[in-house]
Amino acid sequence: MEFQKGKILFEGKTKKVYPTNDSNYLIMHFKNDVADSRGSQKRMIKNKGVYNNTISSVLFNYLEGYSVRTHFVQVFKPNEMVVRKLEIIPVEVVVWNFAVGSLHKRYRIPEGKRLDCPVLEFYLKNDKLRNPMVTIDHACAFGYAKLEEMHTIDRMVRKSNVVLKSFFDRRELKLTHFSLKFGRYDGRILVADELSADTCHFWDMRTTEREGMEFLCFDSDDVKQAYEELKDRICR
Amino acid sequence: MEFQKGKILFEGKTKKVYPTNDSNYLIMHFKNDVADSRGSQKRMIKNKGVYNNTISSVLFNYLEGYSVRTHFVQVFKPNEMVVRKLEIIPVEVVVWNFAVGSLHKRYRIPEGKRLDCPVLEFYLKNDKLRNPMVTIDHACAFGYAKLEEMHTIDRMVRKSNVVLKSFFDRRELKLTHFSLKFGRYDGRILVADELSADTCHFWDMRTTEREGMEFLCFDSDDVKQAYEELKDRICR
Repeated sequence: MEFQKGKILFEGKTKKVYPTNDSNYLIMHFKNDVADSRGSQKRMIKNKGVYNNTISSVLFNYLEGYSVRTHFVQVFKPNEMVVRKLEIIPVEVVVWNFAVGSLHKRYRIPEGKRLDCPVLEFYLKNDKLRNPMVTIDHACAFGYAKLEEMHTIDRMVRKSNVVLKSFFDRRELKLTHFSLKFGRYDGRILVADELSADTCHFWDMRTTEREGMEFLCFDSDDVKQAYEELKDRICR
Repeated sequence: MEFQKGKILFEGKTKKVYPTNDSNYLIMHFKNDVADSRGSQKRMIKNKGVYNNTISSVLFNYLEGYSVRTHFVQVFKPNEMVVRKLEIIPVEVVVWNFAVGSLHKRYRIPEGKRLDCPVLEFYLKNDKLRNPMVTIDHACAFGYAKLEEMHTIDRMVRKSNVVLKSFFDRRELKLTHFSLKFGRYDGRILVADELSADTCHFWDMRTTEREGMEFLCFDSDDVKQAYEELKDRICR
């Protein structure tokens, strides 16, 4: 199908969204902006949008191959993809395979420890409430989603984790943690948003001498190179 | 069996624990102290220990009648009970039937709203980490309990909630929220600690004109009367 891009619908920190000539589909544009810029100064990385669009397209396609349904339809431009228009569920799921980052800090689990089983955390996407942690119970009791939808999401996240861990292992990348969002489309739950260098976190098994060093170090000068390296390894 | 009390093992804010002549059993002594006294000044309520021991004994007995196993063995003295010696699981479960207190505040759910389904929250009992919220995944991955133990606890909590809600409804008390702790005994999971005016929260359907007023108002002068009233209604 030939899609045509309409006037902008929404602009976020790292993405823009456009309507298309078919009301069931949207175009998602990946910006070069860095989300976590502190202060007022915007930070951009050349070609970040192209890298993240490429990485997300490959990973969504790969998940589809394992029957994990996503909103991805096709690449539109190097930094844009066509996606299904979803009714977004306001819950973000973070999956942890290792005790790193905030998981390590909050529970004082030794840094870098491999977890005996993956840990799923659900967070309500609500800036005013500071994105508090929620459980399947909260989501159902407060009407964010139905019980069966939350159980579907839980299963999809665990399956995606197994599939992606194996995919990255073969590329000598340890998937330490990543996040997913979901939405409803025609009565089904689909993976939404992106699956990119901004939402997945790794250790590089090639270059790091010890576990505990993050591959994508967003504070370093090599961040553009890190995006490029990740894109190359994923697309090889 | 005739139990004999040994020298004190442990003293907490509201309870003391003693060994007995049988190493499988302990004696739990309910103090008159109020747990949430602010500052250095201790606050006591006359006969609080007797009320809470009586209430806990009745409720533990009642749960046992519905095959929810607890550590309760028998009353020892008006303010003391004999309990099985457990290996405590460091997770506290809070069950919410209504959006009150911190649940209302954290998620900005209208105060007093009846929840469509009960909400279970698990908290790690660890003062240094400020008792953070955990899920079944955290408890398993970090080794606090096994997966099947956490599922057993989840089932026991939901069943206890149904049984207790009905028990209190008949006494014109709405169980808004309560907490439970658990431990292992001889390969089984038992309800531990207490089930008392300090861990259960109600609305009084007799005296309150609107939902939203807590029955046990610990800041009022009538707190002793509230304990006594609760004990009387439970034991009638």
